[in-house]
Amino acid sequence: MSDSILNDISHRRWNLLRGSWILVSPHRTKRPWQGLQEKPSQTTLPDYDEKCYLCPSNTRANGSKNPKFTETFVFVNDYSAVKEEQQEYHPADEEGSLESRLFRAEGVTGKCYVICFSPCHHLTLADMSAPEILPIIETWTNLYAANLDPKSPLAKVASILTIPPISQADIEKPNAQYRYMQIFENKGTAMGCSNPHPHGQIWTTTSLPEEPAIELQQLSKYRKDWKGSQLLVDYAKSESNKQTRTVFENESFWAGVPYWAVWPFEVMIVSRQHKRSLVDFNDKERKELSECISEITRRYDNLFETQFPYSMGIHQAPLTGSEDEIESSHFHIHFYPPLLRSATVRKFQVGYEMLAEPQRDITPEQAAERLRDCGGTLYRKKLN
Amino acid sequence: MSDSILNDISHRRWNLLRGSWILVSPHRTKRPWQGLQEKPSQTTLPDYDEKCYLCPSNTRANGSKNPKFTETFVFVNDYSAVKEEQQEYHPADEEGSLESRLFRAEGVTGKCYVICFSPCHHLTLADMSAPEILPIIETWTNLYAANLDPKSPLAKVASILTIPPISQADIEKPNAQYRYMQIFENKGTAMGCSNPHPHGQIWTTTSLPEEPAIELQQLSKYRKDWKGSQLLVDYAKSESNKQTRTVFENESFWAGVPYWAVWPFEVMIVSRQHKRSLVDFNDKERKELSECISEITRRYDNLFETQFPYSMGIHQAPLTGSEDEIESSHFHIHFYPPLLRSATVRKFQVGYEMLAEPQRDITPEQAAERLRDCGGTLYRKKLN
Ligand SMILES: O=P(O)(O)O[C@H]1O[C@H](CO)[C@@H](O)[C@H](O)[C@H]1O
Ligand SMILES: O=P(O)(O)O[C@H]1O[C@H](CO)[C@@H](O)[C@H](O)[C@H]1O
Repeated sequence: MSDSILNDISHRRWNLLRGSWILVSPHRTKRPWQGLQEKPSQTTLPDYDEKCYLCPSNTRANGSKNPKFTETFVFVNDYSAVKEEQQEYHPADEEGSLESRLFRAEGVTGKCYVICFSPCHHLTLADMSAPEILPIIETWTNLYAANLDPKSPLAKVASILTIPPISQADIEKPNAQYRYMQIFENKGTAMGCSNPHPHGQIWTTTSLPEEPAIELQQLSKYRKDWKGSQLLVDYAKSESNKQTRTVFENESFWAGVPYWAVWPFEVMIVSRQHKRSLVDFNDKERKELSECISEITRRYDNLFETQFPYSMGIHQAPLTGSEDEIESSHFHIHFYPPLLRSATVRKFQVGYEMLAEPQRDITPEQAAERLRDCGGTLYRKKLN
Repeated sequence: MSDSILNDISHRRWNLLRGSWILVSPHRTKRPWQGLQEKPSQTTLPDYDEKCYLCPSNTRANGSKNPKFTETFVFVNDYSAVKEEQQEYHPADEEGSLESRLFRAEGVTGKCYVICFSPCHHLTLADMSAPEILPIIETWTNLYAANLDPKSPLAKVASILTIPPISQADIEKPNAQYRYMQIFENKGTAMGCSNPHPHGQIWTTTSLPEEPAIELQQLSKYRKDWKGSQLLVDYAKSESNKQTRTVFENESFWAGVPYWAVWPFEVMIVSRQHKRSLVDFNDKERKELSECISEITRRYDNLFETQFPYSMGIHQAPLTGSEDEIESSHFHIHFYPPLLRSATVRKFQVGYEMLAEPQRDITPEQAAERLRDCGGTLYRKKLN
């Protein structure tokens, strides 16, 4: 029996990377939709907006003036979710008491950065060519390298990087050694983004956050169970052979809709070889990564001919950690986009999904096929 | 040192019920908001809408005509996410092969119901009095009872229920024994709800979904670790003593913002005594549960003087399961509402939250205080 039956029946798929299930209901796309319609995002923004705190030469909330940057620009978030300095927390409840069992908290410090992807106010990743995306990858790499534990095996690799280090004063190495750096982008108002100027965020924390911790556990377990095999090496190879869920690939990366995708057009970019983090890449690999990001974001916009909203982010090795944690880590990027049927109808992960189990309507295979088929010139450029 | 320092520093809290962390950044509420503004929901709906497929006497998509119901009305969802009958799935990949390790799926069948809370098109739970909510609880109880495994210890309890059983033909006992019944409500367009007629959903499946499974694991572990103690009994007692996170309570239930709440105004209603599921409640307890639901939903609407969107749902014992699973289960209701600062500004669980860790801005204690303080008459009724 072939697996094509999964196009017709409701089933659960196992997310091997998280160790969790998702419910797939392929027949459910036929349901009529009378719910919320998103506003398709405005596409006629100026190159420069004098009121935008991310445009070159403008003044930010804290009074600093942005430089006249030409590629990327990084600064410390004026409204950081975590701070470098704060009072220490010592629980009031006695250790071993019932209260200490029920009410457990720990202080978290860290540093939050904003990274402008371009000086141009309206340029999104989808509008940018691979060579224009490359400096963003280089800046991520630099910032990650600068925050590595000097004792990590990755620090040695980082020390021979062939890209120019960042030398901005306000992104100097922080006082403390942080545990993890989460690089991400929220794009579009539907994804909580409050400024259309192309930018991402980078949060470093003393804690290893939930999601990378869950994945690390699974990656490490796979390596142990299968005598040193790497889960995502095996996975990328197998996907690349099958092709059914592939959206785009080059020599270094596989990009496609994961077998266990939750969001309708979710995509994962995976390094084919075992790469622990950004600093493991050479020039060619960075170039090929920028090509993947360009291919995916352009297809997203082409799919419904709209500025496709998403949250995306990098999972990679912690800044400091055990040898097993670092050697089990495998660089990959997740794209989580909410749209389902059109520029205005999204998938809601709500009631059943929040209370019981993530649920999707179209199959990952159907999603991959549609994304595969909408490569080529960005629709906005065709119209001009 | 008192725990009040947690009002000022960023920290993580441990969700004992899920076994996971969330990041709390109390100082972050000062951040200005230029992002998406929700449309506050329309409040002038008619009592009856001839185009609504949930109003009494109207015809649904499948051609059936709704009865002239007076309290609740249950029917099988015309666009069910899972079905009672479908082809069986047998994986194409050989057992033990690399492929079978990476690509794991299983068929899921089940039955999805819709429950109308009232014949009146515009009446929400917040508008309804506790006695008006009681029939909903009775219907949930009946449907749960009808779907129990006859061999479950809960089936005996259900057989002596003092409420009249439902006798609608289309909600007859299904052919198969399902594993879990998820009862939930999505309220408001912001929560993916596509029809304002007050209604909830009930999905039963052959699988035990992720969230109840995760909680069950934690509940069972606690019982084992602490010699038969029940996590949520200990928790409700301790919260009721502290009062800092209490929103409302009566003899049978504690309702408040959990210590580990993710959503700004998240609320949990917990039975103080160990009750495994709906069928364990007597008349007094059902009455007190309806009082809690009424108090919480009314406060929600009063908070920002709007139709407060949320997803809510019941976690309780599986329909069939091991003795440990059934005895570790503890009835509770989660409310997950997205609004943060006003009727139009919501909290987004996006980039960092999806990729790294759930994050909240106001503390659960601040949220509980505000909800405590807005009891009393529903704001809409005061205006009239
Ligand atoms: O079934 P409905 O109300 O049409 O749909 C809503 O609730 C479902 C269950 O939480 C979700 O899967 C859908 O995304 C949401 O729009
Ligand atoms: O930091 P921003 O862009 O103002 O805020 C956005 O991203 C954050 C990180 O994912 C979220 O916590 C916020 O809810 C969201 O609105």
